[in-house]
Amino acid sequence: MTDATRDFGEIERRVRRFRDERDWKQFHRPKDVAVSVAIEAAELLEHFQWKTDDEAARYLADAANRDAVAAEMADVLILLVSAADVIGVDLHAATLAKLEANAAKYPVAKAKGTAAKYDRL
Amino acid sequence: MTDATRDFGEIERRVRRFRDERDWKQFHRPKDVAVSVAIEAAELLEHFQWKTDDEAARYLADAANRDAVAAEMADVLILLVSAADVIGVDLHAATLAKLEANAAKYPVAKAKGTAAKYDRL
Amino acid sequence: MTDATRDFGEIERRVRRFRDERDWKQFHRPKDVAVSVAIEAAELLEHFQWKTDDEAARYLADAANRDAVAAEMADVLILLVSAADVIGVDLHAATLAKLEANAAKYPVAKAKGTAAKYDRL
Amino acid sequence: MTDATRDFGEIERRVRRFRDERDWKQFHRPKDVAVSVAIEAAELLEHFQWKTDDEAARYLADAANRDAVAAEMADVLILLVSAADVIGVDLHAATLAKLEANAAKYPVAKAKGTAAKYDRL
Repeated sequence: MTDATRDFGEIERRVRRFRDERDWKQFHRPKDVAVSVAIEAAELLEHFQWKTDDEAARYLADAANRDAVAAEMADVLILLVSAADVIGVDLHAATLAKLEANAAKYPVAKAKGTAAKYDRL
Repeated sequence: MTDATRDFGEIERRVRRFRDERDWKQFHRPKDVAVSVAIEAAELLEHFQWKTDDEAARYLADAANRDAVAAEMADVLILLVSAADVIGVDLHAATLAKLEANAAKYPVAKAKGTAAKYDRL
Repeated sequence: MTDATRDFGEIERRVRRFRDERDWKQFHRPKDVAVSVAIEAAELLEHFQWKTDDEAARYLADAANRDAVAAEMADVLILLVSAADVIGVDLHAATLAKLEANAAKYPVAKAKGTAAKYDRL
Repeated sequence: MTDATRDFGEIERRVRRFRDERDWKQFHRPKDVAVSVAIEAAELLEHFQWKTDDEAARYLADAANRDAVAAEMADVLILLVSAADVIGVDLHAATLAKLEANAAKYPVAKAKGTAAKYDRL
């Protein structure tokens, strides 16, 4: 059962519309969009800089901080969807396919409860 | 009109199931998941390293390369969805809200056709 | 008193020689070198991925792991020195100047013992 | 022949002094310093975001922009030197050693004029 408010296509359409209304596709060279995904990911990470896990938990317990973190996560997704659009990738399908591939790489029997990389299992 | 195969909730459910079947939630401290988003973003960027825009275009014209890039993009999304889950963020709603906020920050009349940051418009 | 084996110029000269012997300056467009600094920084970070601070300390207590981390740190410095070279920055002087600027931004009296950003002091 | 103003030890001593005068070593857990190196590298990269190589060249032709870029590069080096200090790595020696290792990985005869990774040579 799907829920119209959780449609991934809605995000894709609105990301494209936002970009095209501003005539920004000209700047969306694939490499530049990938650079921007990395920059936004670093801005997300900045919220955790110099914080222990306990301090991060206290920080995230505050709704205003959590909203700021959510906005950075949204920026990463917006850029990622933009990258998929210009590169011609179906990000929804690619993600489900990658989860299948990861399941083969990290079989439950071997990977359960360990953070080791697949080549160390 | 929604399409069941483009449901964002489907990605969220499968990301959670993948994690929980392996008992990996214990490693998913928010800071660690944010670190991992940044690492995956850098792996996506690596596909463009030392390439001009023309070289990147030629690289992406090859289906095998494009699949490899799609897999890295999927990894970023998987980690981002994992981060949203442990932090308690509705990533779908946050993304639509951020697009609204960006629209206010970058009004079409001022932002059209320029890559300048909002504070330089 | 200086020590010839700790000369920063020695690193700069050997980085340049390594690049020029391979005729790689053609690839060292400033943006590409900056991209590579970020990619190498993420590879350094990968050594700490999914580790608590205690786990990181145990990991670093092993000489082989510490050597691997040192090699990633070296890669960051090599790329940073390469970036400074093509951009025309004296990295040694810029670093001493930035430490002076940071000292003004984070006065001891206000910054002592707090990890807050300068605009929150 | 060395030049006192190009001494790497001078940078190390001043980075340590800056940190210790502010009692910041307590925050310099190795993972946190590695996180900060990555964040600073992304801030450097931000100067090149959405710019073609030509646009980047024009940007860097302006002395004020070049100074801002130099300051970001300095921040990367300051954090990298801080990481080396807490991890117990001799960054100067590690960098010279890595250049030797890279020379073996990328022999001039095979690597000359190609940006291919060593495993593709």
